[in-house]
Amino acid sequence: MSDIKKVVLAYSGGLDTSIILKWLQDEYHCEVVTFTADIGQGEELEPARAKAQKFGVKEIHILDLREEFVRDFVFPIFRANSLYEGEYLLGTSIARPLIAKYLVEIANQSNADAISHGATGKGNDQVRFELGAYALKPEVKVIAPWREWDLNSREKLLAYAEQHDIPIERKKGESPYSMDANLLHISYEGKGLENPWQAPEEEMWRWSVSPESAPDKATTLELTYEKGDIVAIDDKPMSPATVLAYLNKVGGENGVGRADLVENRYVGMKSRGCYETPGGTIMIKAHRAIESITLDREVAHLKDDLMPRYASLVYNGYWWSPERQMLQTMIDASQATVNGKVRVKLYKGNVIVTGRMSATNSLFDTSIATFEDDGGAYNQKDAEGFIKLNALRMRIAARLQQAQKK
Amino acid sequence: MSDIKKVVLAYSGGLDTSIILKWLQDEYHCEVVTFTADIGQGEELEPARAKAQKFGVKEIHILDLREEFVRDFVFPIFRANSLYEGEYLLGTSIARPLIAKYLVEIANQSNADAISHGATGKGNDQVRFELGAYALKPEVKVIAPWREWDLNSREKLLAYAEQHDIPIERKKGESPYSMDANLLHISYEGKGLENPWQAPEEEMWRWSVSPESAPDKATTLELTYEKGDIVAIDDKPMSPATVLAYLNKVGGENGVGRADLVENRYVGMKSRGCYETPGGTIMIKAHRAIESITLDREVAHLKDDLMPRYASLVYNGYWWSPERQMLQTMIDASQATVNGKVRVKLYKGNVIVTGRMSATNSLFDTSIATFEDDGGAYNQKDAEGFIKLNALRMRIAARLQQAQKK
Amino acid sequence: MSDIKKVVLAYSGGLDTSIILKWLQDEYHCEVVTFTADIGQGEELEPARAKAQKFGVKEIHILDLREEFVRDFVFPIFRANSLYEGEYLLGTSIARPLIAKYLVEIANQSNADAISHGATGKGNDQVRFELGAYALKPEVKVIAPWREWDLNSREKLLAYAEQHDIPIERKKGESPYSMDANLLHISYEGKGLENPWQAPEEEMWRWSVSPESAPDKATTLELTYEKGDIVAIDDKPMSPATVLAYLNKVGGENGVGRADLVENRYVGMKSRGCYETPGGTIMIKAHRAIESITLDREVAHLKDDLMPRYASLVYNGYWWSPERQMLQTMIDASQATVNGKVRVKLYKGNVIVTGRMSATNSLFDTSIATFEDDGGAYNQKDAEGFIKLNALRMRIAARLQQAQKK
Amino acid sequence: MSDIKKVVLAYSGGLDTSIILKWLQDEYHCEVVTFTADIGQGEELEPARAKAQKFGVKEIHILDLREEFVRDFVFPIFRANSLYEGEYLLGTSIARPLIAKYLVEIANQSNADAISHGATGKGNDQVRFELGAYALKPEVKVIAPWREWDLNSREKLLAYAEQHDIPIERKKGESPYSMDANLLHISYEGKGLENPWQAPEEEMWRWSVSPESAPDKATTLELTYEKGDIVAIDDKPMSPATVLAYLNKVGGENGVGRADLVENRYVGMKSRGCYETPGGTIMIKAHRAIESITLDREVAHLKDDLMPRYASLVYNGYWWSPERQMLQTMIDASQATVNGKVRVKLYKGNVIVTGRMSATNSLFDTSIATFEDDGGAYNQKDAEGFIKLNALRMRIAARLQQAQKK
Repeated sequence: MSDIKKVVLAYSGGLDTSIILKWLQDEYHCEVVTFTADIGQGEELEPARAKAQKFGVKEIHILDLREEFVRDFVFPIFRANSLYEGEYLLGTSIARPLIAKYLVEIANQSNADAISHGATGKGNDQVRFELGAYALKPEVKVIAPWREWDLNSREKLLAYAEQHDIPIERKKGESPYSMDANLLHISYEGKGLENPWQAPEEEMWRWSVSPESAPDKATTLELTYEKGDIVAIDDKPMSPATVLAYLNKVGGENGVGRADLVENRYVGMKSRGCYETPGGTIMIKAHRAIESITLDREVAHLKDDLMPRYASLVYNGYWWSPERQMLQTMIDASQATVNGKVRVKLYKGNVIVTGRMSATNSLFDTSIATFEDDGGAYNQKDAEGFIKLNALRMRIAARLQQAQKK
Repeated sequence: MSDIKKVVLAYSGGLDTSIILKWLQDEYHCEVVTFTADIGQGEELEPARAKAQKFGVKEIHILDLREEFVRDFVFPIFRANSLYEGEYLLGTSIARPLIAKYLVEIANQSNADAISHGATGKGNDQVRFELGAYALKPEVKVIAPWREWDLNSREKLLAYAEQHDIPIERKKGESPYSMDANLLHISYEGKGLENPWQAPEEEMWRWSVSPESAPDKATTLELTYEKGDIVAIDDKPMSPATVLAYLNKVGGENGVGRADLVENRYVGMKSRGCYETPGGTIMIKAHRAIESITLDREVAHLKDDLMPRYASLVYNGYWWSPERQMLQTMIDASQATVNGKVRVKLYKGNVIVTGRMSATNSLFDTSIATFEDDGGAYNQKDAEGFIKLNALRMRIAARLQQAQKK
Repeated sequence: MSDIKKVVLAYSGGLDTSIILKWLQDEYHCEVVTFTADIGQGEELEPARAKAQKFGVKEIHILDLREEFVRDFVFPIFRANSLYEGEYLLGTSIARPLIAKYLVEIANQSNADAISHGATGKGNDQVRFELGAYALKPEVKVIAPWREWDLNSREKLLAYAEQHDIPIERKKGESPYSMDANLLHISYEGKGLENPWQAPEEEMWRWSVSPESAPDKATTLELTYEKGDIVAIDDKPMSPATVLAYLNKVGGENGVGRADLVENRYVGMKSRGCYETPGGTIMIKAHRAIESITLDREVAHLKDDLMPRYASLVYNGYWWSPERQMLQTMIDASQATVNGKVRVKLYKGNVIVTGRMSATNSLFDTSIATFEDDGGAYNQKDAEGFIKLNALRMRIAARLQQAQKK
Repeated sequence: MSDIKKVVLAYSGGLDTSIILKWLQDEYHCEVVTFTADIGQGEELEPARAKAQKFGVKEIHILDLREEFVRDFVFPIFRANSLYEGEYLLGTSIARPLIAKYLVEIANQSNADAISHGATGKGNDQVRFELGAYALKPEVKVIAPWREWDLNSREKLLAYAEQHDIPIERKKGESPYSMDANLLHISYEGKGLENPWQAPEEEMWRWSVSPESAPDKATTLELTYEKGDIVAIDDKPMSPATVLAYLNKVGGENGVGRADLVENRYVGMKSRGCYETPGGTIMIKAHRAIESITLDREVAHLKDDLMPRYASLVYNGYWWSPERQMLQTMIDASQATVNGKVRVKLYKGNVIVTGRMSATNSLFDTSIATFEDDGGAYNQKDAEGFIKLNALRMRIAARLQQAQKK
C-alpha cells in the first residue's frame, strides 16, 4: 500500500463513501478526487461538494448525466426488450457502465492512476464498475475498500466514522434496506427480504403507490417512437430523460412497476431484490407493441433468441465489451423501421396496450390478414404445398418407423 | 375426387363443421366418421352426437380429453416458461396436436384413409393439424375444405346450409368474432380487431371481468409444485385439469389474463388476436418464481436461451417433431428439482408473487447472500481474481488500441 | 396462361434452358428476354447469344459478374466461417441470390412482369431464386417450367427438343451427373451418387486432381487479410475474383477441396452431393487462423454460435431477407480488426496453416501467454478467486444434495 | 498453513509432481495420498509407485481408467460433434473431469480434506480440476502449489529438487515442450510455439508421421455405429478404449490428426497449441457422416446450434455442471437412431468418407431424392406454395417499401 498517487472515487456524499474517502487518504496516503453524478437518483448533489471540501478534496467533479444516461444506456437496452431472467429490467446494471466511463475519463483528465468505488465484494456492482474500468483504461488500478478493509460490520463502520469525525446523519425515516436509485429504477435488498417466502412490507416502496391505493380512473398515454426510442408523449416532444421521468411519475401514480424477484448474481449466489421501475415497465410493454407491427417476423425472432444473452451481458457488467457492442450494432440496425405510436392505459398496476399504429412502417396488412374475402391477395391453396414440404422429413421418418415395426 | 373411402372429421357440431360434414359426403362420396373432444371449451358435446346422427354418421367419437390435454400438453409448455414473441401463451397452438393425435388414432382404428378439419387456409391451425397428422400417420390424406371449396364468404356458406337443410341456429348474443376456446384460453380474432389501433370493446371478453370491475379485495393462493407442475392449490391436491379450471375461475374473477397482441403467423402475415388466459397467466408467473429458488443459474439461462425457439416450434405446429421432443427431454430433465411452493396475490388484473419456498430444493443460501456478516461463508477477496481474469481479454485489447494510437 | 407479356429467363444456352425458352414462347405467348451471366462457371457465353437470337429473342443480356459475385456474395459468407451442416461450403447457394438480383433488375429495366428459371421442383435452387425475386420485386410473377410442364423425363425433353428444332449437341465426354459450377465450386449430383454407400468414381471430378495424383512437393502461400477479406497473395494485391480463381487453381493442383456429403435440403429430403471447392477450402481454414489472433474470444464465440443459423439462411435462400442482412451487419462489424497474414501449406489434399500474424491487431500477447517467467504481467493468484466464484453455484447445490442425503 | 490433515495429489511420478509431493509434506505438514491414473498417456505407472514410496507415501492409488475415459468422457463429446472454436478436439479438456472425479472419490474414501494438482495458475487445467472437485465435493480444499509457491522458474524448481534429494532424470531426447497426453491426444505448448508465425518443427510431433512421410497407399476402414458410438471396426467388435487406440494407431501411421492452433483460454489469454488427435480426427468426420443419413434435419441443426456452447462448457471445465449434463441428456437422446456404418479412407493426412449406410435408420430416401422419375413420391407443385408462403412476409415488406418511395 502502495505506489498510488491519485485516486478518483465514485462519491455519493453518504456515510459509506465518506468513510471510504477518509480511509483512502489515510491508508493510501494519496490524493482523492471525487466524482458525483446526477443520474436521477433524486438526491441533491451539492451537499456532496461541501463534504468533500471538508475532507480537503481539491478536485471535485459533480455532473448531471441524466440525459446521457437515458439516451446512451437506458434506451439501447429497451431496443432489445431486455429482461434478465425473464423479469428484471436491469435498473442497477445499466447505470454502472456510465459511472465507470466517467471514473476513467476523470482519471485520464486528472492524471490519476487509480479509481475506487463503494461496492461490496459480494455483489454484481463491483464487477460492473471494474470490468468497465479495465476495458476503458487497462492499466488502471482499482481500490475496492470493501474487499480490503476489516470494517465488515455496521458497528465497525460507525466506530470508524466517529473516530475520524465523519458526520453520521440519521435522517428520519431512513430505510433499513440496501437501496440503489437512478432514473430507471430504485432497488431494495437485505433485511426481511432475505427470506424469499416473506412479502415486502408496504412501507418499503418509495416510488409507486400500491395497486390498491392507485386511482380508480385509468390514465391513457400515447407514445411516439422513432427508431425504437420514445421521442414524444401525447404528441409532446421530449428529451430521453424527460420521457423517462414523466413515465416514472405517471406510472408510479398508477401503481405500475413493482417487481419482487430472486435473481442469480454473476458472482454465484441467488439474491432477493425488490424493484420499482414504473417508466421501464411501461416502455418494455409498449416497445414490444410498436415492434409487433413494424418488425419482420424473423428479425423479431432473432432478437428474441439473443435477448437473454444480451441481457446477461449487461447484467454481468460487459457493457464495454466488444461482444455487447457487436450485438448492439445488430439490434440498433433492426430499429430503423420501428416508428409509430402506441397507446397504453395505466390502471392500478396494469399496463394495457390499447392500440399501435405506424403511418410509415406498418407490416400489418389488413388486406391479407382479414377473415373476410381478401380478393385474392392470399392464395389459400399455397398452404397445402407449404405444409406438405414442411412435413416431408417427418413423413419419411414415420414411414421408416412403420416399416421397422412390420 | 377421389379414391377416399372414409374420413375422420374433427367435428364441433357447429355450423361450419356441419357444412363440412355434408360437403364431404357429397363431394367425396365417402363415409364420414366424426370426432368431438371436450378439451374444456365449455360447450356441451351431446348435441354434436345428435347432429352427426342426423347426417347419417355411423361412427361417432366423443371424448373427454381435458386431463390429458392439461397433463401432457399444457403443463409441458409451462415447464419451459413458453411465450411466443414474448407475450402469447400458446393457448390455441397447444390444443391442435392433441386433436391431431386423436384424428390419427381414430383413423387407424376405423381404417379411415383421410382426416378433415375446419381450419382455413390462412391460419396456423391447418398447419398444426396437418403437421401432426403427417408425423403420426405419414400416408394419411388430408382434406381441408376451406382450401378446396368455393364457399369463401359467409353468404355462400349460409346458402349452402340452407340448400342442404343444415340448421342455422343463431344463438342470441352470439359473438361476431372468430373464437377458439379450450381449458387454457379463449381467443378472439376478426371484425374490429383487424384495426390494430382500435381497442377491443369490453363486451368481447367472456372469461374474465375487466380489472376495473374486479373485486376491491385481493385473492391469495398457494401453489404447490412437484417437478415443475402444480399438484395442489392451498394445500389441496388437484388433478391437472382441476388445477387449470380452478385458476381460470379465480383468475378470471380478478381480471387476470387478458392479452391483446399482434402476432406473426407461420404462414407469413401479421394478425391481431385477443386472448383470455387467466390460469396460464398465473402459472407462468408462478413457475418462474419457483424456478428462481430451485434452478441452477446456468440451467435457467440455457432454458431462457432456448425458450423462444421451443415456443416457435409449438406455435408453428411442430409438437410431434423430433426436435420439439428433444428439447422437451432436456426441459423436463431440468424440472427434477423444481419442487416447493409459491404464494401469489391476484388483484384487479395483477398477479403478484409474494413468496416462494422449497423445503427440499432451495438454492437460495441466506448464509451467503446476506448483507450482514456471513461468518466467512463467502470470501470477498475472491471477487478480485474473478474480475481480473474476466477482464483480461478486454485489457489486452485496450492496451493494443492504446499502443496503436501512439 | 395468361396475362404475362414479357419474361426474363435465366438462360445458360444449354439444352434445358433452350427448351424452356421455346416452351415459354409457345405456352405463354410472351416475349422472352434472356439473361446469361459469367459467374466463373468456366463456359463461353457467346454461344448463348447466338442461340437466343435463333429463337428470335430481341433483348439478350450477357454480363460478367465475377467480381461482384466474389466481393459481395462469396467473401461475406467466409467472414462468417460459414459451413452448412458442418461441412458444406455453400457453393451453389451463394450464386442464386446474385442471379435473382439481376433477373429482377433486368425485369425492371425491360418492363417485364415475370421471370423464369430452369431449377426443378425438388431442389433448393427454385427456393433461392424465387425468395430472392419476391423479396426484391414483390409483385413479380415466377414461371418455373419444371413444376408446370409434363416433360418430366429425359426422353420427353429430347422429344420436345427434336420436335421444336432445338439443337441437341452431345459434347464428347459429357458428364452424366447433374452439375453446377461457379467461381466458388462445382457440384455433382445424381446417378451413382444416389447410393450413399458408393464412393464417387474418380472420373467424375473436374476441378481437382486426387490427393494421390497431386505433386509430391507442397505449395506454400501467404494470404494477406484486410477486414476479414483476402486482398493479396504472396504480397501481390489481387481483386476478389482473382484471389478466388488463383486459389482454385493452386488448390485444385494440390488435390484440395473435394467433399462428398449427404445434406438436408430445405424442401425436406436428404440428398447426396459431391463438391470441389479448392479455393473455399483454403479460405475457410485460413480465415479461422487470422481470426484466431485478431478476434476477441467472446466475439468469436458469438460468431460461432450464430454461424449455423447464418449458414442455414444462406442455404435456404434467405440472402435478401432482413434477418440475413441483420446478421451480416454484425458479422461485418466484427471484421474491422481481422487484418494480417496467414501462411498455408497445400499438400495432397491437406491445407495446413503454418503461421499467422498481425502487425496491427494481434491479441496474442506473448508476455502473458508465456510458460516462462512473465515478469508479473499475469497474477496467478487471481485464478483462485476466478475459480471459486465460478464454482460457487455448484458448491451450493452440492451442499444441498449432501444435506438431503443425510 | 493450516488445518489440512490429508491431501490427495494427482501424481504422475514426474519431476514436477514429485516436487509438489515433497513441498506439500514440508509446507502443509500433512499426509499425502497419491493418485496415478492410466488414461492412455503411454507411460508406465509402476515407477510412480516406487517414487511415492520413497517419499514415505502410505496410500498409493494406481488405476487403469482407459475404458471409463473413452466410454464416459470421450464418446459423449463426439456424439455432440464437439469442436472448440471450430477446430480443437478437446483432448486435454476431457481428461480433467475424470481425474477430478477420482481425486474426490479417493479423498472421500481416505477421509482426506484436500486435493492437490500440478496445473499452473495460467492455464485451463486448474479450472477444470477445481470446478470438478468443488461440484463433487463442495467443502474440499484445493492446494494448487503453482499459485502459492515462489518456485516460479525452472531454475528454482531444480534447485528445490536438488536440495530435497528429488531425482532429476533427464531422459534422453526429452521434449522441450510442455506436453499432455491421453488416449484422445497429445498436446504441445511453449518454446518456439509461442511465436504464432513460426511453424512447429517436424521433430516435435510424436504420435503421427507427417503427411509427407505417410504411406503412398491408402488405408480403408469400416466403422460400425450404435447409438452414435463406434462399436466395431471392420466388423470386429471392440471396446471403446480399443476403438480409440486402434484409430490412433492407423490414423497416426497415415499422417492423420495434426492440428496447430491459437485458442482462447478460459482464463483470458490466447495461447498457441499443437495437437495430435489421429483417432479423434477420424471419429469426428465419420460421426457426421453417419448422422448425415440417420438424423432428422432439425435435430441435426439444433445440435449444430448448441455445439459451440457445449464445447465451451467442456473446454472451460464445466463437465460436472448441471447445464452440461442437461445438454448431454438431449444430445444422447438424439443418438438413438444413429446406427449404421461409415467407410473411411485414410491417406497422407486426409480422412475421406467414401460411404455411409444404415440398414435400420436411414432417412435417405432414394425414391424421393432421385433426379429420375420418382413415380409421384414427391409432388413438385407443392414447392410453389412452400415458396410463396415463405416469401410472404418479405413481399409485404417490399411492397411497403415501394409504396414509401412513391
